[in-house]
Amino acid sequence: MKGPSSQRDLRKLLCELLRLFYAKEWVSGTGGGICSTIGKKAVLMAPTGVHKERVTPPDLFVVDPLSGDIIRPSKNRSLQLSECNPIFCAIINRRGAGSVMHSHALSGVLAADLAGTSDHVVFEGLEMLKGIRGCSNLDKHPVPVIHNTSREPDLIGQINDMINRTDFSRSFAILVRDHGAYIWGEDVWESKRHAEIYHFLFEATVARARYRLKGGN
Amino acid sequence: MKGPSSQRDLRKLLCELLRLFYAKEWVSGTGGGICSTIGKKAVLMAPTGVHKERVTPPDLFVVDPLSGDIIRPSKNRSLQLSECNPIFCAIINRRGAGSVMHSHALSGVLAADLAGTSDHVVFEGLEMLKGIRGCSNLDKHPVPVIHNTSREPDLIGQINDMINRTDFSRSFAILVRDHGAYIWGEDVWESKRHAEIYHFLFEATVARARYRLKGGN
Amino acid sequence: MKGPSSQRDLRKLLCELLRLFYAKEWVSGTGGGICSTIGKKAVLMAPTGVHKERVTPPDLFVVDPLSGDIIRPSKNRSLQLSECNPIFCAIINRRGAGSVMHSHALSGVLAADLAGTSDHVVFEGLEMLKGIRGCSNLDKHPVPVIHNTSREPDLIGQINDMINRTDFSRSFAILVRDHGAYIWGEDVWESKRHAEIYHFLFEATVARARYRLKGGN
Amino acid sequence: MKGPSSQRDLRKLLCELLRLFYAKEWVSGTGGGICSTIGKKAVLMAPTGVHKERVTPPDLFVVDPLSGDIIRPSKNRSLQLSECNPIFCAIINRRGAGSVMHSHALSGVLAADLAGTSDHVVFEGLEMLKGIRGCSNLDKHPVPVIHNTSREPDLIGQINDMINRTDFSRSFAILVRDHGAYIWGEDVWESKRHAEIYHFLFEATVARARYRLKGGN
Repeated sequence: MKGPSSQRDLRKLLCELLRLFYAKEWVSGTGGGICSTIGKKAVLMAPTGVHKERVTPPDLFVVDPLSGDIIRPSKNRSLQLSECNPIFCAIINRRGAGSVMHSHALSGVLAADLAGTSDHVVFEGLEMLKGIRGCSNLDKHPVPVIHNTSREPDLIGQINDMINRTDFSRSFAILVRDHGAYIWGEDVWESKRHAEIYHFLFEATVARARYRLKGGN
Repeated sequence: MKGPSSQRDLRKLLCELLRLFYAKEWVSGTGGGICSTIGKKAVLMAPTGVHKERVTPPDLFVVDPLSGDIIRPSKNRSLQLSECNPIFCAIINRRGAGSVMHSHALSGVLAADLAGTSDHVVFEGLEMLKGIRGCSNLDKHPVPVIHNTSREPDLIGQINDMINRTDFSRSFAILVRDHGAYIWGEDVWESKRHAEIYHFLFEATVARARYRLKGGN
Repeated sequence: MKGPSSQRDLRKLLCELLRLFYAKEWVSGTGGGICSTIGKKAVLMAPTGVHKERVTPPDLFVVDPLSGDIIRPSKNRSLQLSECNPIFCAIINRRGAGSVMHSHALSGVLAADLAGTSDHVVFEGLEMLKGIRGCSNLDKHPVPVIHNTSREPDLIGQINDMINRTDFSRSFAILVRDHGAYIWGEDVWESKRHAEIYHFLFEATVARARYRLKGGN
Repeated sequence: MKGPSSQRDLRKLLCELLRLFYAKEWVSGTGGGICSTIGKKAVLMAPTGVHKERVTPPDLFVVDPLSGDIIRPSKNRSLQLSECNPIFCAIINRRGAGSVMHSHALSGVLAADLAGTSDHVVFEGLEMLKGIRGCSNLDKHPVPVIHNTSREPDLIGQINDMINRTDFSRSFAILVRDHGAYIWGEDVWESKRHAEIYHFLFEATVARARYRLKGGN
C-alpha cells in the first residue's frame, strides 16, 4: 500500500488514523498522537491537548524534523504543537522513520509492567512478530522500556539512548512505563501495521503472563 | 477546543456524547446522563429513564442550577427530568463545573470495590493522570468513594460532604459504590476528557490490582 | 419511550435491535433472536439459522402466541421460523411479556456457571438492578438457571416450571446453562433495557466472583 | 442465506467480511485473510501483506484450486497473492470447502495454548457447538492443533495430515499454535457462521479454563 501522494490526502489520512486509534482506545482523553514526514524536510504533526478523534486536516502543524521548528502552524491559531515533537523528530532523524505514532493504550502500560526492573520486555512465540519489518516468528524480540518523566519532552534522553542501542536496533517501538508506547515505520501504513502488531504483542503477552502465573499450560 | 456557541449546537453535542458514552457502555440500560451549563443561569439536562443513545436535542430540559427548578421542560411532555438534577446542580454550584456526566460503567463499580471500607481510592503511577486539570503523573490522586443509596437524590448529603473536603479538592470525580461515578469539568469538552481519563484510571487500576494479587511484578 | 405504532416501523425496529445485539456479541453465529407482540393476537418473530444482523423487515414471521401457529410466513420462503417460538410464546402468554429476546452472550454462559448445582443465581449490590421493573438496588434478585437440552424446544418444560415459581416472579430473565438467556419486558423498549441491565449484571457478577476468589476486597 | 450469484457481488462481500473481521480484531496488522470458490474451477483470494480492511473488490486474485496457479491477477499489479494459497486450496480440494478464512485472533492463540503438548483441544458443554454443521451441543468436539512454522506455506504438511485424520473429520477448523486458526464452510455464509462460532468456543473455553484454575465452579 502506497502512502498518499498529496499533502492534502496525507492530512486526511492522519486524521482518519487518529479516529481509528481513538476507537481502539489508544488515544483517549486527548492523549497520544501521530506524525508523518512529507518529503525529507517536513513533518506533519497533530496538535497537543485536543480530542484526537476530532482533529481535522487544517489543524495539523508542519515541522522541520532537523530543528523541530514549526514551518507552518495549524490553521487553528489556538492550537499548540504536540509535546511529542522532539521525540517524533529524534525517531525520524535517527531511525529513518517516515511516521511515528504515540499510544496511551492500557495494554502498553501493562506490557511495560512486565519488565519489572529490567530495561526491556521480550516478545516471542507469536506469528504476529512477522508483521514487524525484518522479524521472524522464531525471533526473541526485545523492546526497550524506559521510565516515565513528569514532562513528556524530558523522555528524550532515554529515547536517544534506546534509539542508539544495538541490542534494540530491530525494534520499532519503545515502551514507557505507566504511560504507553512510541511506535514507528517507514511510512504511515507501516506505522499503522506496526502499531496493530505491537498492541497485539502487548495484549497477548500480558494475557499469557496472567495465565501462566495461575499454573496454566 | 471551544464548546458550541449556540444552545442549538450544545444540545446536539450533548446528544452526540450520550451516543458515544453508550457505545463505551457507560450509560447502558437507560442509566447515566450528562448536563452542561448555558451561561451562568441555566443548565441543559438529559431526561431520566430513557435509552440515552436515543435522546434528541429537543428532549433536553433547561434547569436553574441554583434552585434546581425547571426553566423550560422537554418538548416531549412524557419525559421526566434526570434524577441526577440535585447532584448535577450541587457540583455546578459548589465546584464551578460547567458540565457533569454520570457513568454506570462496570469499571467504576470495580474501582469503587477497591476502596474496601475506606472513603477513597488513590490513583497513581499513570501518565493519564496528566489529563486531569492541575494533576501531574507523579501525584497520588485520591478520589472519594461514597455509599450507594436506594434513591439517587439521597446521595446528595454524601456528595456535599465530599465536595467540601479539602483532601478531595483536586478530584473531578466521585465514585459511588455498586453504582458508578460522577465526573465533571469546566465545560463539555473537559468533562469528556475527564470522563475518558477517569475511566482509564479505573480500568488500569483494577487490572493492576488483579494482576498484583496473583504475584505479578 | 413508546414503541412503534405501525407494524412496518416495528419490523424495522426489531431488525435494528438485532444489528445492535450482534454488535454486542449477543447473537453471533446465527444464534439468539427477538420477538414482539403486535396487539394481543400476533407476534412478530425472527427466522432461525440466519445471520441475525442481516435480517430484513420482510423476513419476519407473524405468529399466533396462543397456538404458536404461523399467521403470516416470512416473505422469504426459504426461511424457517425461530426454534424459540414455543418459549417466546410461553413467556408472552404466561408472563404478559410484549417482547422477548434470546441471547447467546458469553457473559450469560459464565453467569450460569456461577450457579453450580443450584437452580438460580442471585444478583445483588448493584445500582443497575433498578433498571429491572419493580426492583430496588437493595434487593437480592434471584434469576432461575435451567439445564440445557439438545433441542431448543425441549427447554419448554423447565421454562414453564420457572415461569410459575413464585420465588422467581420478579425476574424477567431465565439463564440456560452453557447456552445463554431469555430476557423479556412489556414491550420492545423494556426488553432492550432489561437485556442491557441483565447483561451488565452477568458481567459485573462474573468479574466480582473472579476477583474475590483471588482475595480481592 | 444464499451466497451472491455474481462474481461482482461475491468480490464485494469478501471485502465486506474482511472489514467485519478487522473490526473483530481477527485480521489486524495485515494478517489473516479469506477466500471463496466461484464455481468448481476458481477461487477468489485476498492479497498478502495489505491492511485487510482496505482491500477492494478489484484487488482480489482468481486462483485455480487444483494447481494453485493464478488465473487472473489482482488489478493492482503491486499486490502479491496471499501466502495462504496452498492451505486454502488444500482445504477446498480435500474437505470440499467453498470458503476458508484465516484468523489471527488472540483468542485462537490462547485456545491453542490450552492444548499443551496434545495435538488437539476439545470444545464441549456449549450450545454454540450447534452452529457447527453436523454438531450437537452434547458432542465433545475435538479441533486439531498444529505447530507453527517460520513460513506459512510450510504448514501444509501438518494441515494435510489433520485434514485426513478421521478423528477430526467433523471439525471445520484447525488451530495453529502461537498463530491463529483456519476456519471453513461450504460457502461464504457458512464460513462466516463457523468463524463466529469457533471464536466464541475459543473465548468461552479460555475464560472457563482461567476461571476453573482459580477454584471456580
